[in-house]
Amino acid sequence: MELPHMKPYQREDACSYALGPFVSFEFLTHRPELVKAIYLHSKAEESGCALDLIKRAAQLGIPCGVSDRTIAKLSPKENCWALTSYVKWQDDLSKDASHVVLVSPSDSGNVGTILRTALGFGVRDVAVISPAVDIHHPKTVRASMGAISAARTRVFACYDDWREAFPNHEVYPFMLTGSTALQSVSAPKQFALIFGNEASGLPDEFAALGTPVRIDHSRDIDSLNLSVAAAIGLWHFTKASS
Amino acid sequence: MELPHMKPYQREDACSYALGPFVSFEFLTHRPELVKAIYLHSKAEESGCALDLIKRAAQLGIPCGVSDRTIAKLSPKENCWALTSYVKWQDDLSKDASHVVLVSPSDSGNVGTILRTALGFGVRDVAVISPAVDIHHPKTVRASMGAISAARTRVFACYDDWREAFPNHEVYPFMLTGSTALQSVSAPKQFALIFGNEASGLPDEFAALGTPVRIDHSRDIDSLNLSVAAAIGLWHFTKASS
Repeated sequence: MELPHMKPYQREDACSYALGPFVSFEFLTHRPELVKAIYLHSKAEESGCALDLIKRAAQLGIPCGVSDRTIAKLSPKENCWALTSYVKWQDDLSKDASHVVLVSPSDSGNVGTILRTALGFGVRDVAVISPAVDIHHPKTVRASMGAISAARTRVFACYDDWREAFPNHEVYPFMLTGSTALQSVSAPKQFALIFGNEASGLPDEFAALGTPVRIDHSRDIDSLNLSVAAAIGLWHFTKASS
Repeated sequence: MELPHMKPYQREDACSYALGPFVSFEFLTHRPELVKAIYLHSKAEESGCALDLIKRAAQLGIPCGVSDRTIAKLSPKENCWALTSYVKWQDDLSKDASHVVLVSPSDSGNVGTILRTALGFGVRDVAVISPAVDIHHPKTVRASMGAISAARTRVFACYDDWREAFPNHEVYPFMLTGSTALQSVSAPKQFALIFGNEASGLPDEFAALGTPVRIDHSRDIDSLNLSVAAAIGLWHFTKASS
């Protein structure tokens, strides 16, 4: 099968791509209907993954072939053996499940890591509030280790749009000045953990929108990394507080 | 004062550098004796940080001046307004404080993020077991947000060298197959949390070297990100288990 021509990521494109064999498999498993083609590096066989990918793509009727040039052009790292191009999508988030809400995240890697952690702790629904990085940036997809394909994600124009669609979630904005220490929170059945931008955090008015939570840390640091704060919050709400 | 000529990072060099005004300040605060020079971008004044850095450097007798060329050559990102060159160091770790021990980490960003998280939770001592990324890689320094300058770090040739130097720490290797769920651990006064490589984790034999701990997660993911696992471990041992 002939492989479609690929261009490096641009935000406005309707398509994006997943780098690496592991992440490519995740897309074939969870979003086969959105995969357009799989590009392999000629050295992919050495990594032992090429045959399985080729077989699976053939079963699904997805174009799959070798194109070192495409991978060299699109992968920021060497030693990338596979690239999966796919059509971006939006999911309907579940009204019955807990959510993570990311307000204006600016680092693609953080968003991907949070998707991975949330999925690992059983929180499949992630809302992103604009303006924000594109959740389909190849860096996000890679940092998620493919978790984005198994998660449910949706972008909202503003926080109120999310809240209107999900008025029953108990809301926990994570804030440096939160009045409630994380340790003391008893997690309800259906929660939403809200996290702000890496540099600026959540605007003050979020304190009034739910139970503002703080993660105590020493004054030796200014703040925790966003994906670290989200991981600790997710851990507490799903594993430690019950 | 004339600024010394700078070359892009190379592992074998005795010097490295910290990117950004915030991280530069951390180095002036915690390691002034190791700072060789501060390079400012001509646009640094716009960011409002240049004057403070210039003043502080002058007080300390550290060369400081404008060199857009140095910054353009050494910073992978645009909008970097300051760069601090410093002499790499090793610390003596404390025998009385808890440790984080990173066995063969391969991602500079993870190591930096872990230094930042550990310092935030009062764990100042971080051992790195070779082979490993250079803890003074500019990416590590930046991901640490300067925490590396306030932390105590030391590289050991092997795990046994660390253990011989610190025989009294209670050891907790974090392993996917750990027999003890993190939630159920009561943290002792003086602990060492041991984490393996991003891709391969800790070798099996570590299970016998202490209390092997697992962080339960769903089968939807293969594993947690290393800096996420370390953050959750640090959170539990310092904040949640007491």
